[in-house]
Amino acid sequence: MPLIVQKFGGSSVANAERVRNVARIVTETFRAGNDVVVVVSAQGDTTDDLITKAAELTQKPPRREMDQLLSAGEQISISLLAMACNELGCPAVSLLGWQAGFQTDSRYGAARIKSIRTERLQVEIGRKNIVVVAGFQGICKYDDITTLGRGGSDTSAVALAAALRADRCQIFTDVEGVYTADPRKIPGAKKLSEITYDEMLELATLGAQVLNNRSVEMAKKYHVELEVLSSLTNKPGTIVKEVTAMEKMLVRGVTKDSEAARISVIGVPDVPGIAFKIFSKLAAKNINVDIILQSVGRDGTKDISFTVSRTHAPEAIELLGKLDILDGLTVTCDTAVAKISVVGAGMETHPGTASQMFEALFAEDINIQMIATSEIKISVLIEEAAADRAVAAVHRAFFPEE
Amino acid sequence: MPLIVQKFGGSSVANAERVRNVARIVTETFRAGNDVVVVVSAQGDTTDDLITKAAELTQKPPRREMDQLLSAGEQISISLLAMACNELGCPAVSLLGWQAGFQTDSRYGAARIKSIRTERLQVEIGRKNIVVVAGFQGICKYDDITTLGRGGSDTSAVALAAALRADRCQIFTDVEGVYTADPRKIPGAKKLSEITYDEMLELATLGAQVLNNRSVEMAKKYHVELEVLSSLTNKPGTIVKEVTAMEKMLVRGVTKDSEAARISVIGVPDVPGIAFKIFSKLAAKNINVDIILQSVGRDGTKDISFTVSRTHAPEAIELLGKLDILDGLTVTCDTAVAKISVVGAGMETHPGTASQMFEALFAEDINIQMIATSEIKISVLIEEAAADRAVAAVHRAFFPEE
Repeated sequence: MPLIVQKFGGSSVANAERVRNVARIVTETFRAGNDVVVVVSAQGDTTDDLITKAAELTQKPPRREMDQLLSAGEQISISLLAMACNELGCPAVSLLGWQAGFQTDSRYGAARIKSIRTERLQVEIGRKNIVVVAGFQGICKYDDITTLGRGGSDTSAVALAAALRADRCQIFTDVEGVYTADPRKIPGAKKLSEITYDEMLELATLGAQVLNNRSVEMAKKYHVELEVLSSLTNKPGTIVKEVTAMEKMLVRGVTKDSEAARISVIGVPDVPGIAFKIFSKLAAKNINVDIILQSVGRDGTKDISFTVSRTHAPEAIELLGKLDILDGLTVTCDTAVAKISVVGAGMETHPGTASQMFEALFAEDINIQMIATSEIKISVLIEEAAADRAVAAVHRAFFPEE
Repeated sequence: MPLIVQKFGGSSVANAERVRNVARIVTETFRAGNDVVVVVSAQGDTTDDLITKAAELTQKPPRREMDQLLSAGEQISISLLAMACNELGCPAVSLLGWQAGFQTDSRYGAARIKSIRTERLQVEIGRKNIVVVAGFQGICKYDDITTLGRGGSDTSAVALAAALRADRCQIFTDVEGVYTADPRKIPGAKKLSEITYDEMLELATLGAQVLNNRSVEMAKKYHVELEVLSSLTNKPGTIVKEVTAMEKMLVRGVTKDSEAARISVIGVPDVPGIAFKIFSKLAAKNINVDIILQSVGRDGTKDISFTVSRTHAPEAIELLGKLDILDGLTVTCDTAVAKISVVGAGMETHPGTASQMFEALFAEDINIQMIATSEIKISVLIEEAAADRAVAAVHRAFFPEE
């Protein structure tokens, strides 16, 4: 009998009406002849409400206690969903992270799954129960409750699908699948029926925000076939898998990332090792650097520009200020930038993709500040004010309106 | 080092301010040189809110899922209290029922504690942690979460005190201790400094509502010294123990129970076995009968009257209607009654107690409908309208205003 893992986020179970809706989807899947394991997040704003309660008491809550506190959120949602499934006539049982066998390390608040002991899960599936599992949580070797960090429920679902060798892992969201661009902004955006893990990873990193990246990496590693689909419409979503059967599309999507900041160091002496010193300093503080550009400056000096996330920009500037080798140099930071990317496994064999993208931007008179390429994506940094216009233009270039 | 178990109810931890107040009490006890284990209930209305959430989905929630749901309430309060203690500079760790070793039977919603595996508790106490334990919950042999039923947190605290051989178990409430009458109604009511388990049991049964009865029975069985005191004032409360050192007081308290209903069957044939048939029928449906009065009627018949709780009265009437032997007889039910009791271990050697009580009622022109006595209490059933006046009069008789 096929086994399907279904995951529903917090907004999908935010109130009684939505819990009933999820129960309908789950029980229909069950009645269609599948074994079903459901992973749910905490209801709507529960997690934020609990964080507020803690903040009223202390600015530095012990992480262990935060995990104890926050994990109550899924405890509430799983038992409610199990009740709703029972009410619809299908036997259902809820399992907390530890009851479902989620063993994690002891990094409270950001724990990693070490293994899933599936005995209890197998027993409940064997009894023909729908099994409703608390996402986002597990238990460490000290018998303490741990949480996987925000977005961790996706990871819970994929890990369960891998451990149970499920036939499919369905991630229900508030969008109908993965689109060639943000459908709220680009009216011509098309839903993709299939996409590869690697393409999905690039899209997720670049801000498509449909799937948590860690979960896609895990799905790729364990060959879990994912489907991203909507809990509100009864339509097929987007399948994420290793190799897609579709004809090779040049480009899968166009994305915008407005979380970038560009930092430039002007007039760096042209001697070896300076770039290394800059970037090792940032790496030591876990500041990710994205696009890097080194240009020839005047008088035997050079300019080094790079992008970091906006939240990290102030710390990066501060670190650069402490570097003796940069004494007296000008360091600028521009947060009014956006990164526009095209993603697609097909482009590695199509050298024309980049020029097609640049042409579309040129036609709109949009200046390109930086460029970065990989096998399956091309990213450009532009001024933020032009970002939406840029996405629309590039999308039109690759996905002409019918 | 002395070990003290402290228990705080839901209203004591209802919001951040109250959680901080409880943390102050707990950390002061800890800093005074005691090991401290704290048992807390869910915050304020949390349990009722969770029940409402379930009721929105189903009228018949599976009990297992209700326990999974409700136990989240204490999970929230224990982690918050542990954070608040840490904030006050004392290391604290929260433990869920199963983490604290509470093993119960599988009667979801009304589980009984079978044992407490204290290993983890001992480890945390040994590490000089304040240990904050979730009341009201445990785990059964199936690794499912169970709840002890309402009021179960008192029982959790007493069971912990017994298992850990604590020096004292302090039950914090919103009153300052056990009084000779309800202090909100009787201005002359006096706080008792000590009381025996048996007296406390009678007072609890009769509606004093300070301590859950099951917890007093357990305290008596395992010789746990209880103290009932207020979380809002810093005053000694009432000690509940086997033998009190006080001079033998005739009467410890006067109570009112307005939850009684009187059922009368008029004109029962005077043949053997009828009372047995009536009361065995009620017992089979778990309807507790309290006071029973059988009186000689006219024409060789008799009248049988008894009291049950008001919630059970309709079901009792219905059951009597199905008894063939009562066919054609008149069954009446009066819910406008109240039971007034005086309780005190001293009265068994003082035959004058009853007449003193009756005299006080007579002086107020209050008619006594039924009487029941035990070694340590005398109860009378009267019309409800006169109940408060009756309590005041009886209290005055035994505790004259100074």
